[in-house]
Amino acid sequence: MRLFDWKAAPNPRRVRMFLAEKNIDMEIIDVGEPGAPKLKDEFLNSNPHRIVPALELDDGTVIGEAPVICRYLETVHPTPSLLGADPKEQAAIAMWDRKCEFEGLHAVAEVLRNKAKAFAGRALPGYTIPIEQIDGLIERGTVRVGAFYAKLDHRLGESTHLATKNLSFADITAFCVVDMAKAGKMTIPDGCANVSRWYESVASRPSAKA
Amino acid sequence: MRLFDWKAAPNPRRVRMFLAEKNIDMEIIDVGEPGAPKLKDEFLNSNPHRIVPALELDDGTVIGEAPVICRYLETVHPTPSLLGADPKEQAAIAMWDRKCEFEGLHAVAEVLRNKAKAFAGRALPGYTIPIEQIDGLIERGTVRVGAFYAKLDHRLGESTHLATKNLSFADITAFCVVDMAKAGKMTIPDGCANVSRWYESVASRPSAKA
Repeated sequence: MRLFDWKAAPNPRRVRMFLAEKNIDMEIIDVGEPGAPKLKDEFLNSNPHRIVPALELDDGTVIGEAPVICRYLETVHPTPSLLGADPKEQAAIAMWDRKCEFEGLHAVAEVLRNKAKAFAGRALPGYTIPIEQIDGLIERGTVRVGAFYAKLDHRLGESTHLATKNLSFADITAFCVVDMAKAGKMTIPDGCANVSRWYESVASRPSAKA
Repeated sequence: MRLFDWKAAPNPRRVRMFLAEKNIDMEIIDVGEPGAPKLKDEFLNSNPHRIVPALELDDGTVIGEAPVICRYLETVHPTPSLLGADPKEQAAIAMWDRKCEFEGLHAVAEVLRNKAKAFAGRALPGYTIPIEQIDGLIERGTVRVGAFYAKLDHRLGESTHLATKNLSFADITAFCVVDMAKAGKMTIPDGCANVSRWYESVASRPSAKA
Protein backbone atom coordinates (compact mmCIF):
# COMPACT_ATOMS: atom_id res chain seq x y z
CA MET A 1 0.00 0.00 0.00
CA ARG A 2 1.09 3.56 -0.59
CA LEU A 3 -0.52 6.90 0.17
CA PHE A 4 -0.59 9.85 -2.20
CA ASP A 5 -0.28 12.85 0.05
CA TRP A 6 0.08 16.63 -0.03
CA LYS A 7 1.64 18.18 3.03
CA ALA A 8 -0.19 21.50 2.56
CA ALA A 9 -3.74 20.09 2.56
CA PRO A 10 -6.02 19.16 5.49
CA ASN A 11 -7.56 15.96 4.10
CA PRO A 12 -4.32 14.01 3.65
CA ARG A 13 -3.31 15.17 7.14
CA ARG A 14 -6.41 13.45 8.56
CA VAL A 15 -5.04 10.19 7.13
CA ARG A 16 -1.47 10.84 8.31
CA MET A 17 -2.70 11.46 11.88
CA PHE A 18 -4.82 8.30 11.66
CA LEU A 19 -1.76 6.31 10.54
CA ALA A 20 0.32 7.79 13.35
CA GLU A 21 -2.31 6.99 16.02
CA LYS A 22 -2.42 3.40 14.75
CA ASN A 23 1.32 3.19 14.33
CA ILE A 24 0.97 2.05 10.71
CA ASP A 25 4.07 2.42 8.60
CA MET A 26 3.45 3.05 4.92
CA GLU A 27 5.09 4.52 1.84
CA ILE A 28 3.90 8.12 1.57
CA ILE A 29 4.37 10.07 -1.65
CA ASP A 30 3.95 13.85 -1.57
CA VAL A 31 2.43 14.81 -4.93
CA GLY A 32 2.39 18.54 -4.22
CA GLU A 33 4.16 20.76 -6.75
CA PRO A 34 7.20 22.16 -4.92
CA GLY A 35 6.83 25.90 -4.31
CA ALA A 36 3.24 26.15 -5.66
CA PRO A 37 -0.15 25.52 -3.99
CA LYS A 38 -1.18 22.76 -6.37
CA LEU A 39 -0.72 19.10 -7.17
CA LYS A 40 1.76 17.81 -9.74
CA ASP A 41 0.33 17.34 -13.23
CA GLU A 42 1.62 13.78 -13.24
CA PHE A 43 -0.70 12.94 -10.32
CA LEU A 44 -3.65 14.96 -11.64
CA ASN A 45 -3.49 13.16 -14.97
CA SER A 46 -3.29 9.72 -13.36
CA ASN A 47 -6.14 10.14 -10.83
CA PRO A 48 -9.65 10.54 -12.27
CA HIS A 49 -10.87 12.45 -9.21
CA ARG A 50 -7.77 14.67 -9.14
CA ILE A 51 -7.63 15.01 -5.36
CA VAL A 52 -5.60 13.77 -2.44
CA PRO A 53 -5.46 11.70 -0.33
CA ALA A 54 -5.53 8.53 -2.41
CA LEU A 55 -4.56 5.09 -1.15
CA GLU A 56 -3.16 2.63 -3.69
CA LEU A 57 -3.47 -1.01 -2.70
CA ASP A 58 -0.93 -3.64 -3.74
CA ASP A 59 -3.28 -4.89 -6.49
CA GLY A 60 -3.46 -1.38 -7.99
CA THR A 61 -6.93 -0.49 -6.63
CA VAL A 62 -7.07 3.19 -5.70
CA ILE A 63 -9.27 4.32 -2.80
CA GLY A 64 -10.04 8.02 -2.48
CA GLU A 65 -11.55 10.23 0.24
CA ALA A 66 -9.99 10.51 3.71
CA PRO A 67 -12.82 8.86 5.71
CA VAL A 68 -13.09 6.01 3.20
CA ILE A 69 -9.34 5.40 3.30
CA CYS A 70 -9.38 5.41 7.11
CA ARG A 71 -12.31 3.00 7.25
CA TYR A 72 -10.43 0.62 4.94
CA LEU A 73 -7.30 0.91 7.10
CA GLU A 74 -9.36 0.25 10.24
CA THR A 75 -10.41 -3.12 8.79
CA VAL A 76 -6.78 -4.02 8.06
CA HIS A 77 -5.43 -2.61 11.37
CA PRO A 78 -8.38 -2.74 13.80
CA THR A 79 -6.52 -1.63 16.96
CA PRO A 80 -6.47 0.89 18.46
CA SER A 81 -9.97 1.56 17.12
CA LEU A 82 -10.51 5.13 15.97
CA LEU A 83 -13.84 4.51 14.23
CA GLY A 84 -15.81 2.93 17.06
CA ALA A 85 -16.15 -0.39 18.86
CA ASP A 86 -19.82 -1.07 18.04
CA PRO A 87 -22.40 0.15 15.50
CA LYS A 88 -23.73 2.92 17.75
CA GLU A 89 -20.27 4.28 18.52
CA GLN A 90 -19.35 3.98 14.85
CA ALA A 91 -22.42 6.03 13.96
CA ALA A 92 -21.61 8.76 16.49
CA ILE A 93 -18.04 9.07 15.19
CA ALA A 94 -19.05 9.06 11.52
CA MET A 95 -21.76 11.64 12.16
CA TRP A 96 -19.46 14.03 14.01
CA ASP A 97 -16.76 13.50 11.42
CA ARG A 98 -19.18 14.60 8.70
CA LYS A 99 -20.30 17.61 10.73
CA CYS A 100 -16.65 18.67 11.00
CA GLU A 101 -16.26 18.26 7.25
CA PHE A 102 -19.38 20.08 6.09
CA GLU A 103 -19.64 22.78 8.73
CA GLY A 104 -15.92 23.11 9.50
CA LEU A 105 -13.58 22.05 6.72
CA HIS A 106 -15.81 23.23 3.88
CA ALA A 107 -16.37 26.58 5.61
CA VAL A 108 -12.65 27.22 6.14
CA ALA A 109 -11.92 26.13 2.56
CA GLU A 110 -14.64 28.49 1.33
CA VAL A 111 -12.71 31.40 2.85
CA LEU A 112 -9.21 30.35 1.83
CA ARG A 113 -9.95 29.15 -1.70
CA ASN A 114 -11.98 32.24 -2.60
CA LYS A 115 -9.50 34.69 -1.11
CA ALA A 116 -5.95 33.66 -2.03
CA LYS A 117 -4.81 34.80 -5.48
CA ALA A 118 -2.99 31.49 -5.89
CA PHE A 119 -6.38 29.74 -6.12
CA ALA A 120 -7.86 31.97 -8.84
CA GLY A 121 -9.85 29.72 -11.19
CA ARG A 122 -9.46 26.85 -8.71
CA ALA A 123 -11.91 27.78 -5.96
CA LEU A 124 -12.86 24.12 -5.61
CA PRO A 125 -10.41 21.22 -5.89
CA GLY A 126 -10.64 18.36 -8.36
CA TYR A 127 -12.14 20.15 -11.38
CA THR A 128 -10.67 20.32 -14.89
CA ILE A 129 -12.92 23.28 -15.72
CA PRO A 130 -12.23 26.67 -14.10
CA ILE A 131 -14.10 27.30 -10.86
CA GLU A 132 -13.89 31.04 -10.37
CA GLN A 133 -13.54 32.71 -6.98
CA ILE A 134 -16.65 34.39 -5.52
CA ASP A 135 -16.07 37.25 -3.09
CA GLY A 136 -19.32 36.62 -1.22
CA LEU A 137 -18.05 33.22 -0.13
CA ILE A 138 -15.24 34.79 1.90
CA GLU A 139 -17.82 36.47 4.13
CA ARG A 140 -20.16 33.47 4.15
CA GLY A 141 -17.32 31.13 5.04
CA THR A 142 -16.15 33.38 7.88
CA VAL A 143 -19.64 33.40 9.39
CA ARG A 144 -19.86 29.63 9.04
CA VAL A 145 -16.48 29.13 10.73
CA GLY A 146 -17.79 31.17 13.68
CA ALA A 147 -20.88 28.96 13.88
CA PHE A 148 -18.68 25.86 13.69
CA TYR A 149 -16.50 26.99 16.60
CA ALA A 150 -19.68 27.65 18.62
CA LYS A 151 -21.04 24.16 17.87
CA LEU A 152 -17.69 22.56 18.69
CA ASP A 153 -17.48 24.46 21.96
CA HIS A 154 -20.98 23.45 22.97
CA ARG A 155 -20.29 19.80 22.21
CA LEU A 156 -16.93 19.78 23.99
CA GLY A 157 -18.66 21.23 27.03
CA GLU A 158 -20.77 18.06 27.13
CA SER A 159 -18.03 15.57 26.28
CA THR A 160 -14.21 15.40 26.60
CA HIS A 161 -13.98 14.35 22.97
CA LEU A 162 -16.34 14.94 20.08
CA ALA A 163 -18.05 11.60 19.60
CA THR A 164 -16.77 9.23 22.27
CA LYS A 165 -14.91 9.34 25.61
CA ASN A 166 -11.54 8.91 23.93
CA LEU A 167 -9.97 10.35 20.81
CA SER A 168 -11.62 9.21 17.58
CA PHE A 169 -11.32 10.04 13.90
CA ALA A 170 -13.88 12.84 14.43
CA ASP A 171 -11.41 14.60 16.76
CA ILE A 172 -8.66 14.17 14.19
CA THR A 173 -10.82 15.84 11.55
CA ALA A 174 -11.85 18.68 13.88
CA PHE A 175 -8.22 19.22 14.88
CA CYS A 176 -7.11 19.46 11.24
CA VAL A 177 -9.95 21.93 10.61
CA VAL A 178 -8.91 24.15 13.53
CA ASP A 179 -5.28 24.12 12.41
CA MET A 180 -6.34 25.04 8.87
CA ALA A 181 -8.54 27.83 10.24
CA LYS A 182 -5.67 29.09 12.39
CA ALA A 183 -3.39 29.16 9.37
CA GLY A 184 -6.03 31.37 7.72
CA LYS A 185 -6.12 33.70 10.74
CA MET A 186 -9.45 32.29 12.00
CA THR A 187 -8.16 31.42 15.45
CA ILE A 188 -10.18 29.83 18.26
CA PRO A 189 -12.49 32.60 19.58
CA ASP A 190 -11.82 33.82 23.12
CA GLY A 191 -15.11 32.50 24.48
CA CYS A 192 -14.44 28.93 23.32
CA ALA A 193 -12.68 27.57 26.41
CA ASN A 194 -13.82 24.00 25.72
CA VAL A 195 -12.34 24.06 22.24
CA SER A 196 -9.06 25.45 23.62
CA ARG A 197 -8.83 22.76 26.31
CA TRP A 198 -9.55 19.98 23.80
CA TYR A 199 -7.21 21.50 21.19
CA GLU A 200 -4.26 21.53 23.61
CA SER A 201 -4.94 17.93 24.55
CA VAL A 202 -4.96 16.74 20.92
CA ALA A 203 -1.99 18.97 20.02
CA SER A 204 0.10 17.28 22.73
CA ARG A 205 -0.21 13.87 21.06
CA PRO A 206 2.72 12.74 18.87
CA SER A 207 0.26 12.22 15.97
CA ALA A 208 -0.36 15.97 15.81
CA LYS A 209 3.06 16.32 14.18
CA ALA A 210 2.05 14.00 11.32
CA MET B 1 -36.56 2.87 15.59
CA ARG B 2 -38.19 5.75 13.76
CA LEU B 3 -37.02 7.98 10.93
CA PHE B 4 -37.50 11.74 10.78
CA ASP B 5 -38.11 12.44 7.14
CA TRP B 6 -38.99 15.25 4.76
CA LYS B 7 -40.59 14.19 1.49
CA ALA B 8 -39.28 17.25 -0.41
CA ALA B 9 -35.57 16.69 0.33
CA PRO B 10 -33.04 14.41 -1.39
CA ASN B 11 -31.13 13.16 1.66
CA PRO B 12 -34.09 11.54 3.45
CA ARG B 13 -35.06 9.98 0.12
CA ARG B 14 -31.69 8.22 0.01
CA VAL B 15 -32.65 6.53 3.28
CA ARG B 16 -36.21 5.73 2.15
CA MET B 17 -34.89 4.04 -1.01
CA PHE B 18 -32.35 2.13 1.10
CA LEU B 19 -35.16 0.95 3.42
CA ALA B 20 -37.29 -0.08 0.43
CA GLU B 21 -34.45 -2.05 -1.20
CA LYS B 22 -33.88 -3.88 2.08
CA ASN B 23 -37.60 -4.29 2.74
CA ILE B 24 -37.26 -2.72 6.20
CA ASP B 25 -40.49 -1.52 7.71
CA MET B 26 -40.16 1.45 10.06
CA GLU B 27 -42.16 4.32 11.50
CA ILE B 28 -41.49 7.35 9.30
CA ILE B 29 -42.40 10.83 10.49
CA ASP B 30 -42.53 13.65 7.93
CA VAL B 31 -41.33 16.78 9.77
CA GLY B 32 -41.77 19.11 6.80
CA GLU B 33 -43.98 22.14 7.34
CA PRO B 34 -47.08 21.57 5.20
CA GLY B 35 -47.17 24.01 2.29
CA ALA B 36 -43.76 25.58 2.95
CA PRO B 37 -40.24 24.50 1.92
CA LYS B 38 -38.95 24.15 5.47
CA LEU B 39 -38.95 21.88 8.49
CA LYS B 40 -41.34 22.25 11.40
CA ASP B 41 -40.06 24.38 14.29
CA GLU B 42 -40.81 21.56 16.67
CA PHE B 43 -38.26 19.34 14.90
CA LEU B 44 -35.68 22.12 14.41
CA ASN B 45 -35.76 22.95 18.11
CA SER B 46 -35.38 19.32 19.15
CA ASN B 47 -32.50 18.36 16.82
CA PRO B 48 -29.16 20.10 17.47
CA HIS B 49 -28.06 19.69 13.84
CA ARG B 50 -31.44 20.86 12.49
CA ILE B 51 -31.43 18.63 9.43
CA VAL B 52 -33.10 15.51 8.14
CA PRO B 53 -32.85 12.57 7.91
CA ALA B 54 -32.44 11.58 11.54
CA LEU B 55 -32.87 8.06 12.91
CA GLU B 56 -34.01 7.69 16.49
CA LEU B 57 -33.14 4.38 18.11
CA ASP B 58 -35.34 2.75 20.74
CA ASP B 59 -33.00 3.95 23.51
CA GLY B 60 -33.38 7.57 22.34
CA THR B 61 -30.02 7.81 20.56
CA VAL B 62 -30.34 9.97 17.44
CA ILE B 63 -28.16 9.23 14.40
CA GLY B 64 -27.88 11.90 11.72
CA GLU B 65 -26.61 11.96 8.12
CA ALA B 66 -27.98 9.69 5.40
CA PRO B 67 -24.85 7.55 4.81
CA VAL B 68 -24.32 7.12 8.56
CA ILE B 69 -27.94 6.05 9.08
CA CYS B 70 -27.68 3.59 6.20
CA ARG B 71 -24.45 2.12 7.51
CA TYR B 72 -26.09 1.59 10.89
CA LEU B 73 -29.11 -0.05 9.23
CA GLU B 74 -26.82 -2.30 7.20
CA THR B 75 -25.38 -3.72 10.44
CA VAL B 76 -28.89 -4.44 11.75
CA HIS B 77 -30.25 -5.73 8.40
CA PRO B 78 -27.20 -6.99 6.48
CA THR B 79 -29.02 -8.46 3.48
CA PRO B 80 -29.33 -7.59 0.71
CA SER B 81 -26.05 -5.73 1.11
CA LEU B 82 -26.07 -2.24 -0.37
CA LEU B 83 -22.78 -1.09 1.17
CA GLY B 84 -20.45 -3.84 -0.04
CA ALA B 85 -19.56 -7.43 0.74
CA ASP B 86 -15.88 -6.90 1.60
CA PRO B 87 -13.64 -3.97 2.60
CA LYS B 88 -12.59 -3.19 -0.98
CA GLU B 89 -16.16 -3.17 -2.27
CA GLN B 90 -17.23 -1.11 0.75
CA ALA B 91 -14.53 1.42 -0.07
CA ALA B 92 -15.58 1.68 -3.72
CA ILE B 93 -19.22 2.26 -2.75
CA ALA B 94 -18.40 4.79 -0.02
CA MET B 95 -16.05 6.67 -2.34
CA TRP B 96 -18.57 6.93 -5.18
CA ASP B 97 -21.30 7.84 -2.73
CA ARG B 98 -19.20 10.77 -1.52
CA LYS B 99 -18.42 11.87 -5.08
CA CYS B 100 -22.16 11.94 -5.78
CA GLU B 101 -22.69 14.04 -2.67
CA PHE B 102 -19.92 16.59 -3.16
CA GLU B 103 -19.90 16.90 -6.92
CA GLY B 104 -23.58 16.12 -7.51
CA LEU B 105 -25.90 16.81 -4.61
CA HIS B 106 -24.01 19.87 -3.35
CA ALA B 107 -23.84 21.30 -6.87
CA VAL B 108 -27.58 20.92 -7.49
CA ALA B 109 -28.34 22.34 -4.03
CA GLU B 110 -26.03 25.29 -4.81
CA VAL B 111 -28.28 26.18 -7.74
CA LEU B 112 -31.65 25.56 -6.10
CA ARG B 113 -30.94 27.09 -2.69
CA ASN B 114 -29.41 30.27 -4.13
CA LYS B 115 -32.13 30.76 -6.74
CA ALA B 116 -35.54 30.10 -5.17
CA LYS B 117 -37.00 33.03 -3.25
CA ALA B 118 -38.35 30.59 -0.67
CA PHE B 119 -34.76 29.91 0.45
CA ALA B 120 -33.76 33.56 0.97
CA GLY B 121 -31.59 33.69 4.10
CA ARG B 122 -31.45 29.87 4.12
CA ALA B 123 -29.02 29.13 1.32
CA LEU B 124 -27.55 26.30 3.39
CA PRO B 125 -29.59 23.97 5.62
CA GLY B 126 -29.06 23.50 9.35
CA TYR B 127 -28.00 27.01 10.39
CA THR B 128 -29.68 29.23 13.01
CA ILE B 129 -27.91 32.28 11.57
CA PRO B 130 -28.98 33.66 8.17
CA ILE B 131 -27.04 32.27 5.21
CA GLU B 132 -27.75 34.71 2.42
CA GLN B 133 -28.15 33.70 -1.22
CA ILE B 134 -25.25 34.42 -3.57
CA ASP B 135 -26.10 34.89 -7.26
CA GLY B 136 -22.68 33.66 -8.42
CA LEU B 137 -23.42 30.23 -6.96
CA ILE B 138 -26.30 29.68 -9.37
CA GLU B 139 -23.88 29.85 -12.29
CA ARG B 140 -21.14 27.92 -10.47
CA GLY B 141 -23.58 25.20 -9.45
CA THR B 142 -24.90 24.86 -13.00
CA VAL B 143 -21.38 24.39 -14.35
CA ARG B 144 -20.64 21.83 -11.64
CA VAL B 145 -23.83 19.88 -12.41
CA GLY B 146 -22.66 19.66 -16.04
CA ALA B 147 -19.28 18.31 -14.90
CA PHE B 148 -21.03 15.83 -12.63
CA TYR B 149 -23.19 14.47 -15.44
CA ALA B 150 -20.04 14.08 -17.57
CA LYS B 151 -18.23 12.17 -14.80
CA LEU B 152 -21.27 9.96 -14.19
CA ASP B 153 -21.59 9.22 -17.90
CA HIS B 154 -17.92 8.30 -18.19
CA ARG B 155 -18.13 5.99 -15.19
CA LEU B 156 -21.35 4.33 -16.34
CA GLY B 157 -19.69 3.66 -19.67
CA GLU B 158 -17.14 1.52 -17.79
CA SER B 159 -19.55 -0.16 -15.38
CA THR B 160 -23.29 -1.01 -15.31
CA HIS B 161 -23.57 0.54 -11.87
CA LEU B 162 -21.47 3.20 -10.19
CA ALA B 163 -19.33 1.26 -7.75
CA THR B 164 -20.11 -2.43 -8.14
CA LYS B 165 -21.80 -4.79 -10.62
CA ASN B 166 -25.17 -4.49 -8.90
CA LEU B 167 -27.09 -1.59 -7.41
CA SER B 168 -25.46 -0.09 -4.32
CA PHE B 169 -26.07 2.88 -2.07
CA ALA B 170 -23.90 4.97 -4.42
CA ASP B 171 -26.46 4.41 -7.20
CA ILE B 172 -29.27 5.39 -4.84
CA THR B 173 -27.50 8.66 -4.05
CA ALA B 174 -26.75 9.39 -7.71
CA PHE B 175 -30.37 8.63 -8.64
CA CYS B 176 -31.69 11.03 -5.98
CA VAL B 177 -29.26 13.67 -7.27
CA VAL B 178 -30.45 13.27 -10.87
CA ASP B 179 -34.10 13.48 -9.81
CA MET B 180 -33.36 16.62 -7.80
CA ALA B 181 -31.50 18.10 -10.77
CA LYS B 182 -34.41 17.23 -13.07
CA ALA B 183 -36.85 18.94 -10.70
CA GLY B 184 -34.62 22.03 -11.03
CA LYS B 185 -34.71 21.80 -14.86
CA MET B 186 -31.16 20.41 -15.06
CA THR B 187 -32.13 17.32 -17.03
CA ILE B 188 -29.76 14.60 -18.22
CA PRO B 189 -27.80 16.11 -21.14
CA ASP B 190 -28.44 14.63 -24.58
CA GLY B 191 -24.92 13.23 -24.91
CA CYS B 192 -25.13 11.22 -21.67
CA ALA B 193 -26.53 7.94 -23.03
CA ASN B 194 -24.93 5.90 -20.25
CA VAL B 195 -26.59 8.01 -17.56
CA SER B 196 -29.95 7.69 -19.34
CA ARG B 197 -29.65 3.89 -19.61
CA TRP B 198 -28.69 3.56 -15.93
CA TYR B 199 -31.36 6.06 -14.83
CA GLU B 200 -34.15 4.10 -16.53
CA SER B 201 -32.91 0.90 -14.93
CA VAL B 202 -32.92 2.39 -11.40
CA ALA B 203 -36.21 4.21 -12.02
CA SER B 204 -37.91 0.90 -12.86
CA ARG B 205 -37.21 -0.53 -9.39
CA PRO B 206 -40.06 -0.34 -6.86
CA SER B 207 -37.71 1.50 -4.44
CA ALA B 208 -37.63 4.50 -6.81
CA LYS B 209 -41.15 5.33 -5.62
CA ALA B 210 -39.98 5.61 -2.01
